[in-house]
Amino acid sequence: MTGFVSFVSSGPGDPDLLTLKAARRLAEADVVLFDDLSAGPILSHARPGADLVAVGKRAGRPSPKQDHVSQLLVDHALTGARVVRLKSGDSGIFGRLEEEVQALRTAGVPHEIVPGVPSACAAAAAAGIPLTRRLTARRVQFITGADVTGDLPEGMNWPALADAGATTVVFMGKRTFPALVEILLRHGLPPETPALLAEAVGHPQQSLQRSTIRTLGDVLAKSRSNQPALILYGPLAETFLS
Amino acid sequence: MTGFVSFVSSGPGDPDLLTLKAARRLAEADVVLFDDLSAGPILSHARPGADLVAVGKRAGRPSPKQDHVSQLLVDHALTGARVVRLKSGDSGIFGRLEEEVQALRTAGVPHEIVPGVPSACAAAAAAGIPLTRRLTARRVQFITGADVTGDLPEGMNWPALADAGATTVVFMGKRTFPALVEILLRHGLPPETPALLAEAVGHPQQSLQRSTIRTLGDVLAKSRSNQPALILYGPLAETFLS
Repeated sequence: MTGFVSFVSSGPGDPDLLTLKAARRLAEADVVLFDDLSAGPILSHARPGADLVAVGKRAGRPSPKQDHVSQLLVDHALTGARVVRLKSGDSGIFGRLEEEVQALRTAGVPHEIVPGVPSACAAAAAAGIPLTRRLTARRVQFITGADVTGDLPEGMNWPALADAGATTVVFMGKRTFPALVEILLRHGLPPETPALLAEAVGHPQQSLQRSTIRTLGDVLAKSRSNQPALILYGPLAETFLS
Repeated sequence: MTGFVSFVSSGPGDPDLLTLKAARRLAEADVVLFDDLSAGPILSHARPGADLVAVGKRAGRPSPKQDHVSQLLVDHALTGARVVRLKSGDSGIFGRLEEEVQALRTAGVPHEIVPGVPSACAAAAAAGIPLTRRLTARRVQFITGADVTGDLPEGMNWPALADAGATTVVFMGKRTFPALVEILLRHGLPPETPALLAEAVGHPQQSLQRSTIRTLGDVLAKSRSNQPALILYGPLAETFLS
């Protein structure tokens, strides 16, 4: 008897930004495997008696190996359980989804992916800005600022990232942003390009801070904060913020 | 007495992919202004007696002018009504959000933006693929394939779009994709780059079709379908699709 795994995107953290489908999957689950960032009040949607398993991964902290998480998922499913694998934001964006899906496919475990609200969309909404704008921000792109070692990934498409006509959102990029800014400036992005630091998006301690890429790079070079954060830069980061 | 406007992102169309907050705002609304793509079963969340106003905009069809929609929003809010402005997908992504927010700011109408599930995330989830992958798809970007006249926007960052190491999602790009493919090939993107055509995402008639950019360009050059569609291309468009 094989169970079923739902990869459930939790959205940015605000339980109001769960989808109806995500809330229902949580209420039906026998087992919920969750990361640090997808925990908190969202777990109150799980039924009393459900098995809640922390498999916390968070940049800069020790965490279970990806292989171990995949194996846990398979093991729980093979008991016949309805398993929810909760992932913050949208699970398809920087969520290491592929490795876990691959493990389930190899083991023959049926599964589904429930999409959710990306943290980048929630950050822009909280700031009162859209991510795209006709003529001046016709492209939006998401990148990660940290590879598995926590460093800025090598060999990214720097000209694409230094495009003043796009909105760029950097996930997990607070520590490496000073280094990224140096590269962006070398590739011609103006230092006064608007930037927005969005910390703890969707959580009660959410904070938004307007800046420019140069100033934000300088600020973050001295920062010790380890709040999860997104950094948006591009022409829209200066509009509408209340 | 001034009302309040909620810009509510409806997600791709599946009412299960509404957020809890979006469902609540709909249930509380006196007036709901909606586009074609955000209509259907989602409107059943509005309370009986709410005023449902179609302001349908859809590429390639006549539609109310943007100024007219903004004025309608302001007029309804100034009656003191709780107004929901429903927008498909995430309202901050190719939703012409800025013009409407600007009109409310000018008129002094308080408002909020409720983020939602982008259609691109729902399309990838339906196909069983993530939008990013460690090392080989470290950047995801969204563009629109149609400007206000319905043509391919001029002067986009073609090298960024011809990057074989990114996942690209083209919104409203079915008609112009053949022209886009010609440009991508000239900028060095291999013709066999995997592509996925996702039509009517989140609707009962949803269909997914795997292809390559060259083949899909040829297919769409002869297509007469006017289903709304997204096109994904990049290394991930070939994985996992069931």
